[in-house]
Amino acid sequence: MATTPRNSGVAPEQPNTAESSRVAFLFDLDGTLVDSVYQHVLAWREALEKAGIELSVWRIHRRIGMSGGLFVNALLRETGHPINPEEAARLQQLHAEAYRRLAPLVRPLPGARELLASLTEARVPWAIATSGRLATAAPALDTLGIPPGVPVVTRDQVDHAKPDPDLFVAAAERLNVPIETSIVVGDSVWDLLAARRAHALGVGLLSGGYGQDELERTGAYRVYDDPADLLRHIDEVGVRFPFGH
Amino acid sequence: MATTPRNSGVAPEQPNTAESSRVAFLFDLDGTLVDSVYQHVLAWREALEKAGIELSVWRIHRRIGMSGGLFVNALLRETGHPINPEEAARLQQLHAEAYRRLAPLVRPLPGARELLASLTEARVPWAIATSGRLATAAPALDTLGIPPGVPVVTRDQVDHAKPDPDLFVAAAERLNVPIETSIVVGDSVWDLLAARRAHALGVGLLSGGYGQDELERTGAYRVYDDPADLLRHIDEVGVRFPFGH
Repeated sequence: MATTPRNSGVAPEQPNTAESSRVAFLFDLDGTLVDSVYQHVLAWREALEKAGIELSVWRIHRRIGMSGGLFVNALLRETGHPINPEEAARLQQLHAEAYRRLAPLVRPLPGARELLASLTEARVPWAIATSGRLATAAPALDTLGIPPGVPVVTRDQVDHAKPDPDLFVAAAERLNVPIETSIVVGDSVWDLLAARRAHALGVGLLSGGYGQDELERTGAYRVYDDPADLLRHIDEVGVRFPFGH
Repeated sequence: MATTPRNSGVAPEQPNTAESSRVAFLFDLDGTLVDSVYQHVLAWREALEKAGIELSVWRIHRRIGMSGGLFVNALLRETGHPINPEEAARLQQLHAEAYRRLAPLVRPLPGARELLASLTEARVPWAIATSGRLATAAPALDTLGIPPGVPVVTRDQVDHAKPDPDLFVAAAERLNVPIETSIVVGDSVWDLLAARRAHALGVGLLSGGYGQDELERTGAYRVYDDPADLLRHIDEVGVRFPFGH
């Protein structure tokens, strides 16, 4: 499409289905499709306490979704407590254990399954890109009913997690779509910063607990409550569903 | 003080100690002095699930600190599930049970004890006003080291909790200070709405997990990170600590 010259003779009244079919969705997982952010927050709180590190819970919340390496650096700044690689690995393990106990309470967010099924039905490509590791993300992914062939990119598969753009770039590559016409949907400022760095369109959801203003200031083109709200307003992000949908 | 006429002969250069000593602080508890909001959120999540009510966790978070009666009405709107008084009572009990399990992880927020001790030392009156019931709030109150004689107003003592102004009005009355010259410190929009309705000065803290913009838009005169940050900037809210403090 990029090679099509301007004024190529396509009547402007005719819906440009080639254009619209080029839209693709790259979804964050925690707080965007599944309601797991607060469980992750308290699991980190427990892991840090066990490691003798005191950090207010809201400061942990504000860092959920960023890469583990950056999280450790942020911890160092907030607490003045240097963390060596062994301690970082132990923290990750303590978090995974604590999260496993809370994970049975994790559910898909309202409308998440319907949104994904509607995109699949309308042949709009979509993928999932999460800063989490596959082992931690697997139970949440299971609740979503993801069809075979949908790319799921986890922390294990890229060099740098969010807010680096690697996860979303890899997801677009797996879909074989240009990242520049992809829509990144996320609940945190880290998703939206990664979207900007990837030159994708960022859309924010409030379902991770961030405020609307924070998401807008980080570059969200639109902010919706949750996947159900995004599905109701899907036209606003340029998606044409088949008639009657 | 209210009867002192203007231009009464006090030189303006002279620090008006009578004025400054009239400042009093009315503190919210959860998310303002103790780091308990996320535990309350997940305790509500668990209670609602046990009662067969599905509600996204971020929507619960946004309602923490409001009165139980309003919370139940909000639930009804969000879920379309009417709640009768027996069910409301059972929900409160399920929440209290779930919270009791998570409460051992609750700590004072950074600077909370220092802030309260500094106010006490400087003879600035202060009180605590919480939408929670005494039974639920007691463990958190214990961690703060509250001196005898400090008023603690709980849900049990007023007709309407926040965002009605009753709790803060009662706290000011117990301190025998005018509410209009009192500073209400809270982490949620419910505290700030109650402050406005009480004609007090509202100050917001980010330590409950709300965004700065939400608190400012609800009328916070200033927003600080947590009690430690408020203590560092106490001059900005008009408090004169004795020299050397």
